[in-house]
Amino acid sequence: MIRAAARRLDGHVRRTPLLNSTFVDKIAGRRVLMKAEALQHTGSFKFRGGWSAVSALLPEAKEAGVIAFSSGNHAQGVALAARMHGAAAVIIMPSNAPKLKVENTRALGAEVILYDRDTENREEIGQKLSKLRGLTLIRPYDEPEVIAGQGTCGLEIAEQAIAMGVTLADVLVCCGGGGLTSGIALALEADAPKMRVRPVEPTDFDDVTRSLATGKPQINARLGGSICDAIITPTPGALTFPIMQRLCGNGIVVPEKDCLRAMSVAFTRFKVVLEPGGAIALAAALYHGDQLSGEDVICIASGGNVDAEMFARALAEYPCT
Amino acid sequence: MIRAAARRLDGHVRRTPLLNSTFVDKIAGRRVLMKAEALQHTGSFKFRGGWSAVSALLPEAKEAGVIAFSSGNHAQGVALAARMHGAAAVIIMPSNAPKLKVENTRALGAEVILYDRDTENREEIGQKLSKLRGLTLIRPYDEPEVIAGQGTCGLEIAEQAIAMGVTLADVLVCCGGGGLTSGIALALEADAPKMRVRPVEPTDFDDVTRSLATGKPQINARLGGSICDAIITPTPGALTFPIMQRLCGNGIVVPEKDCLRAMSVAFTRFKVVLEPGGAIALAAALYHGDQLSGEDVICIASGGNVDAEMFARALAEYPCT
Repeated sequence: MIRAAARRLDGHVRRTPLLNSTFVDKIAGRRVLMKAEALQHTGSFKFRGGWSAVSALLPEAKEAGVIAFSSGNHAQGVALAARMHGAAAVIIMPSNAPKLKVENTRALGAEVILYDRDTENREEIGQKLSKLRGLTLIRPYDEPEVIAGQGTCGLEIAEQAIAMGVTLADVLVCCGGGGLTSGIALALEADAPKMRVRPVEPTDFDDVTRSLATGKPQINARLGGSICDAIITPTPGALTFPIMQRLCGNGIVVPEKDCLRAMSVAFTRFKVVLEPGGAIALAAALYHGDQLSGEDVICIASGGNVDAEMFARALAEYPCT
Repeated sequence: MIRAAARRLDGHVRRTPLLNSTFVDKIAGRRVLMKAEALQHTGSFKFRGGWSAVSALLPEAKEAGVIAFSSGNHAQGVALAARMHGAAAVIIMPSNAPKLKVENTRALGAEVILYDRDTENREEIGQKLSKLRGLTLIRPYDEPEVIAGQGTCGLEIAEQAIAMGVTLADVLVCCGGGGLTSGIALALEADAPKMRVRPVEPTDFDDVTRSLATGKPQINARLGGSICDAIITPTPGALTFPIMQRLCGNGIVVPEKDCLRAMSVAFTRFKVVLEPGGAIALAAALYHGDQLSGEDVICIASGGNVDAEMFARALAEYPCT
């Protein structure tokens, strides 16, 4: 399915660069390769899964339109993919999602419906509207075609890293529901079996790390209130968790402030804009190297949809020189 | 020479992406493709020319080492290229160059010598030291192998744009001494002859625009005091000017504030960090479209070596929503 998704994505998705910097290597104490998915269409890897899912629809379903729920990156990915396919899109977003993400989703032609993250269940709202209007629900991670789309990022990593001489490495992936994590893990199982995916999560939202450690799905106590809004989900996905259990190494938990520090490093050393959740894998590579093994580490810089205020705060509080 | 440089650069230079965004197209009123050279090694296209020049040296010259003068981007490009070739590098930099550029150049192993931009002549200092220590002087633009290296960016643009269906376009290039401008113009003459290079310069530092208009090299009244530090040179190069005369369209002059606005747009829409001089071609595409013709425009985002304070200022003063 990942290879089929890659064929459908070909010519529409950006093959994002795998960047390195001797300055970054020095901070991390090992060679760091960063997959700059913030440079993807709509500013995050989510365009891959969105395109994969929309392009797999039957013509009648495409005509009826799609619906998705998302804190913002999946929203934009689905909205743009739908528009490029001439399909209508309804997107359910938390009322406290970053302004920029809500505005972009609307500007991409989607109808946006806001909900309260702390008191309402987006899955229920999505299913209800889906039935009512005949829209196909595209879940953000527990959806085979979405996982396959995100997995195309893993195919590229294998090819690019091997071309740079790297075959053995921890591959750090920011982890919400696990769509990107499990997709990349499946792709690497086939194309770079010596690379091991390590999910990375923010402190207090480490459901996947605890689920992997205990062997049972764990739930976060809080559902919001993190600057890493893009990767906050209550519990691992039903489809993604077994894949992660089979293929991933231990999770890594990173304090929010390290995400801000990593954003500042990405600004200075890679010239790439990252949002807090999008910088968490780089943060793990830079500041939690004690949990890694080997000379090389690959990290996914998954998104860059951040408000100017938050970005300026990261640069001011954590100057990188 | 450009194709020979491309062969020497292969595997060492980054093939930077040609990015687009429907949001940016909307501001510009036409399709905009941005060549993100800020993502190049050392954060600017200058690595191309540096590598080209150092890799073309005879073994004895490589062993003796190289010398360069630069406000910062050529400095880093030459310093990294020299280090990767095991050659020593001395770099002459203006004392008021951005802190980050001076520090990076030192960290890349070069010996940095500072001079006063307003009262001293860097060309003289460079030639004197070159003789004294037996170092090969690598000029920032009036150097055939440097022009050839910068030209490799043009070969990539032709290939990438044609793959995206664009064959006819104005190609906006930030212009200091004209190394990048003339290199790209030569490459496009061969590989995309319907694309026309347009030099872009900041107000008050428009020597190339005036030189092209009058047919004779003009000199800027001021030598410093611009936020576009990377592209401030007194007059067009002796080698580059005839090439620009033969191949380029009219120059475009852009006020500094438009560079800050374009930096903010690149942050929000491309997730790419640009310095003021590196954003000037995008600024011309966005805010000076009346001087362009045709449906498509390509602009070179040449560098991203900017201090956090300047970047935060651009985001705060010119929010992009």
